[in-house]
Amino acid sequence: MHSSQWIIAGVFLLQGCTMGQPQQATSPRTEIRNCSMNPPYLPPTAIETTARLTALRGALRANGINAYIVPATDPHMSEYIAERDSRLGWVTGFTGSAGTGVVTLDRASLWTDSRYWTQAERQMDCNWELQRTIWIKSIGLWILEAVPPGGNVGLDPFLVSIDTWNSYREALHGSGRTLLPIETNLVDQVWGDQRPPPASSKIYSLPSEFTGNSWQEKVAGIRQQMEQHIQSPTAVLLSGLEETAWLFNLRGDDIPYNPVFYSYTLLTSTDIRLFVNETRLTAEARQSLQTGCPGPLCVELQEYGQVRAHIRDYAQGNVTIWLGTEYTTYGLYSVIPQEKLLEDSYSPVMIAKAVKNAKEQELLRAAHVRDAVAVIQYLLWLEKMVPQGLVDEFSGARHVDALRWAQEHSHGPSFESISASGLNAALAHYSPSNVSSQKLSVDEMYLSDTGGQYLDGTTDITRTMHWGVPTPLQKEAYTRVLMGNIDLSRLIFPADTAGRTVESFARQALWEVGLNYGHGTGHGIGNFLSVHEWPVGFQSNNIPLTKGMFTSIEPGYYRDGEFGIRIENVALVVEAQTEYQTGEKPFLTFEVVSLVPYDRNLIDISLLSQEQIQYLNTYYKTIRERVGPELQSQQLEEEYHWLQRNTEPFRRSSASTTATTLSMLAITSLVSTLLTELQA
Amino acid sequence: MHSSQWIIAGVFLLQGCTMGQPQQATSPRTEIRNCSMNPPYLPPTAIETTARLTALRGALRANGINAYIVPATDPHMSEYIAERDSRLGWVTGFTGSAGTGVVTLDRASLWTDSRYWTQAERQMDCNWELQRTIWIKSIGLWILEAVPPGGNVGLDPFLVSIDTWNSYREALHGSGRTLLPIETNLVDQVWGDQRPPPASSKIYSLPSEFTGNSWQEKVAGIRQQMEQHIQSPTAVLLSGLEETAWLFNLRGDDIPYNPVFYSYTLLTSTDIRLFVNETRLTAEARQSLQTGCPGPLCVELQEYGQVRAHIRDYAQGNVTIWLGTEYTTYGLYSVIPQEKLLEDSYSPVMIAKAVKNAKEQELLRAAHVRDAVAVIQYLLWLEKMVPQGLVDEFSGARHVDALRWAQEHSHGPSFESISASGLNAALAHYSPSNVSSQKLSVDEMYLSDTGGQYLDGTTDITRTMHWGVPTPLQKEAYTRVLMGNIDLSRLIFPADTAGRTVESFARQALWEVGLNYGHGTGHGIGNFLSVHEWPVGFQSNNIPLTKGMFTSIEPGYYRDGEFGIRIENVALVVEAQTEYQTGEKPFLTFEVVSLVPYDRNLIDISLLSQEQIQYLNTYYKTIRERVGPELQSQQLEEEYHWLQRNTEPFRRSSASTTATTLSMLAITSLVSTLLTELQA
Repeated sequence: MHSSQWIIAGVFLLQGCTMGQPQQATSPRTEIRNCSMNPPYLPPTAIETTARLTALRGALRANGINAYIVPATDPHMSEYIAERDSRLGWVTGFTGSAGTGVVTLDRASLWTDSRYWTQAERQMDCNWELQRTIWIKSIGLWILEAVPPGGNVGLDPFLVSIDTWNSYREALHGSGRTLLPIETNLVDQVWGDQRPPPASSKIYSLPSEFTGNSWQEKVAGIRQQMEQHIQSPTAVLLSGLEETAWLFNLRGDDIPYNPVFYSYTLLTSTDIRLFVNETRLTAEARQSLQTGCPGPLCVELQEYGQVRAHIRDYAQGNVTIWLGTEYTTYGLYSVIPQEKLLEDSYSPVMIAKAVKNAKEQELLRAAHVRDAVAVIQYLLWLEKMVPQGLVDEFSGARHVDALRWAQEHSHGPSFESISASGLNAALAHYSPSNVSSQKLSVDEMYLSDTGGQYLDGTTDITRTMHWGVPTPLQKEAYTRVLMGNIDLSRLIFPADTAGRTVESFARQALWEVGLNYGHGTGHGIGNFLSVHEWPVGFQSNNIPLTKGMFTSIEPGYYRDGEFGIRIENVALVVEAQTEYQTGEKPFLTFEVVSLVPYDRNLIDISLLSQEQIQYLNTYYKTIRERVGPELQSQQLEEEYHWLQRNTEPFRRSSASTTATTLSMLAITSLVSTLLTELQA
Repeated sequence: MHSSQWIIAGVFLLQGCTMGQPQQATSPRTEIRNCSMNPPYLPPTAIETTARLTALRGALRANGINAYIVPATDPHMSEYIAERDSRLGWVTGFTGSAGTGVVTLDRASLWTDSRYWTQAERQMDCNWELQRTIWIKSIGLWILEAVPPGGNVGLDPFLVSIDTWNSYREALHGSGRTLLPIETNLVDQVWGDQRPPPASSKIYSLPSEFTGNSWQEKVAGIRQQMEQHIQSPTAVLLSGLEETAWLFNLRGDDIPYNPVFYSYTLLTSTDIRLFVNETRLTAEARQSLQTGCPGPLCVELQEYGQVRAHIRDYAQGNVTIWLGTEYTTYGLYSVIPQEKLLEDSYSPVMIAKAVKNAKEQELLRAAHVRDAVAVIQYLLWLEKMVPQGLVDEFSGARHVDALRWAQEHSHGPSFESISASGLNAALAHYSPSNVSSQKLSVDEMYLSDTGGQYLDGTTDITRTMHWGVPTPLQKEAYTRVLMGNIDLSRLIFPADTAGRTVESFARQALWEVGLNYGHGTGHGIGNFLSVHEWPVGFQSNNIPLTKGMFTSIEPGYYRDGEFGIRIENVALVVEAQTEYQTGEKPFLTFEVVSLVPYDRNLIDISLLSQEQIQYLNTYYKTIRERVGPELQSQQLEEEYHWLQRNTEPFRRSSASTTATTLSMLAITSLVSTLLTELQA
């Protein structure tokens, strides 16, 4: 839902690693623009923006502003955005997922991070300067240079979070330039009828077999929290698309990969208002929402665009509105008087959604069993096809997508499949395209990070393979990534521990020899919702781990220009069995629900401790027990045997044990010789 | 310097555990007040405050305020405060280190945390209500109830941090009550000539053999940072007493346990102003400060009380003042216009002080060798005296203090010695007094957490002992605390890792069986300065770990009403030797500089991994090498032999190894029998 990136010391720490836009691993000079030539050189991929900019500058003049900020976000701070919301992409030509544009009457600049510099140079024409940073402070400094004192800077308040708005305001504070909320989006205005139309596909009810509770039960739970809250909120405002989708057990197709739809919800203690294009609801969905009408469990439907006016009216009364500040836009937030706000980072709906009940847990487990079948089919297929030189990154990605589609309840991939061979895998979020796809080979490592949407759950799994002879470093690094994955997965920790304080267990085995990785260690995941579901995970802005949460665990290692490794599972937070107990709640641990074995060719078993080996063998036993029958019921005999081979228990024959065994053998043979002689 | 407490879910997380005020482990009813009786019952320990309150209320009326907030802090946010700054203690009778009082015209309340509830009930009379919480929000709610709208609430802005001031302001915001800065302290006014006089002892120079750099070099380093800073600060303002003491290599005796003196410093790019009672400087100290006069390396002396007026004047110019917001008072901060501030959590002096150079590291190491001698003497003495019933908690504490005093360069204890037997040790920060001291016994565990001030360094060490037969749980818990200490001490981690992300390694061995502890895992420490030196440590507000920092590592386990365990060492952050390297800086690890062996009677060696045993044996070897010669040179032969006995290497005879050895023995004996027969 919001940007999952964190930057520490210039290195991107992705909350997860599954996001990605097609990207070139290598970029010859002719693929990027050269604006210092005369005339400038533009690659064929560059987009001509002169006319767009001229029109936009006209709109700036008409609105009396000197600069206009164009964010890459949508009104819900969604992680993936619809084409229609890709305003930055349209005005700049640049289609990367993160960036900010600023247009003045005579200049235009794009700010983006190191992942996207090459892509920006390929896609932008010379109207645009590229700024190789993303700090709002640096955007502010550029604006101070480009806009004279007394000037106005415009920004659409419905496209930025409260924090972002305040950061811009601070950056301009005391400088004589004023930040103005421009409520009609100027890019939309000049985009005109070329702009893709609003989504019109159906919004449908999730069948009750795939929901954890009826929406009425969910509403009752939230209302109970409102009543019990010391500040007695009278309403909860939902801006996150997955909040509304989860609450009403509705789904849609408005956003790529995430089955959500454009909406807001205002849930008060006495009524419920859903802001949505109501013509898009299926008859069944409408029926489900209105069985309780009139009454406190009646969902009143109102136009999506009416939300602001309605909130403004509602906020006139003696009310307190509870909202999540991490993803509510400044535009909505600012219509509510400060003293009528109850601000938390996340709304109670977001928190409730993060903790799956027993049925939701079972659904997610079941989705992972079928998902494992698709991935195992893919691994076996690769084993046979790669040595023949018949697979490239792109065809591999398409094949695993197809295998997932063939599984029951499938709704396609949960993000763009990452399929990276050799040095391409060193870019943690590389995805191939049909024009830039490398052939897979037995001489290189291959990283596959893919996931599926199923009616019962969302999945996300990464496996790394080598079908030939890995180098000693590849084998050691892979083994240590695996050790880290095991160490965090088997950790026992107190209830309500912050993920941030335990994620280093996934790194320790790498740290021991001076290795590390530059991204986060995991993210929450939904029941047929977002593959990156906030606010669960291992970063400082995630909420403490509690029983019933699902998170990915995904350590990795990336060697620039050489190879990349990541091992990712989804795991459920469960109660641990401990001899003692400190505090009122049982201690916790993880139950891994992704059920695909690792590449035995890359494991140096002598590095693992006895405990790690035992854990691994228990995991393999679980895989056999849960996936084996599913393979058989799908009549995948070859895959079944592949699974048996690949889940054979490991045994460590450590150096000392070997030595002991050898000396025992020697002595035994000596004894037998002696006995023979004696008998002779 | 500032409160080192963190509360999570109602449990106190002390940054370290060495703070403490005398406290009763048990409190019969007659020891505490009973205000619901008529007349009220007051124990002999209660202080009569009626006259003080009457006088204070007169001052409230004279100043036109309805409520007056009395914090427990001093103008430098010192961790320990002088008697003269104990305003809360004087007005309430309550002498605990943490609390807040509020006096209105007809009510008076004290807020303090669970550590101090019993003590407050013993020390306060019935003029005072006790509020069992410390949240500023709850103080605000009480004020809203006690003060009518339109009323004024007074607070001395020189006794609270910026954050605290803002929290009070927010708590009253929009309520019609106004928070007023009252610059003349009203408690001081009514305390009058009964208030202890200002410190008059000498402020002296630290001999150059005990300093890491001359003060001129330190000033040059800070000025260089000012020049290189992007915001070009013109001055650094130092409010922390240890900042000024460190910068000028000066020491004093104004605060218990911390060798600092009342002062402020304003260091600009062209001059240096030290605000201090200059008559207290020794001739040598004054000489040292003024050899460079006039000039940029001349320290101009100005009266301590002039600091605010001077800063106000200085801030009129075209200046930028750099300061640490964590410990600068709102009173000083508020005279500087917002646009002339460069705010960081900690000043560059605080950060520079945290990273010890090679000489400072050597000094701290040397202090720890002599400190180990005193602690080893104490452990041997206990071993002989406890079985005879000749030691109690208080006499033990006095004995170890005396042993430290006898060491070269000693300046006494670095905090009030914690000496806790049996269930008293379950209070993590218990200190005995001569009226409440338990006898040490071979039937109970004993926890000793003590430290010394030496001219070359400050020390802090905790050992836990049992001279009889520990219970299985005691032995397991002790061993797991030790395993945690070893696991964090031997961890290898990337440069600039946040302590918060690695401290769980000190807990994992406990977590594994459902045990945990409710305090922090460590704190920085100084060279003859604070025993809790900010901003180093393992909490979220500590700065990242870098080479040259010292921190304590002190996991524990506490079982209410039964026993308490803590094992604490001081460790230096050093470069690690790793096979590979990721990033530009070498990976880091810890070198433990506390050199005292653990209680073998409490270690279950079968729980330790081979790596932990090897680490322990290497540590013991270091102790022998470094402390052995010092014991011999101090002619402590008995202690020397005690040390040899107590640092014998450990060997694990695990079940499987034993079995192998036995079968080998059997075979060998069989062979030898056979050979004998053959030869016969």
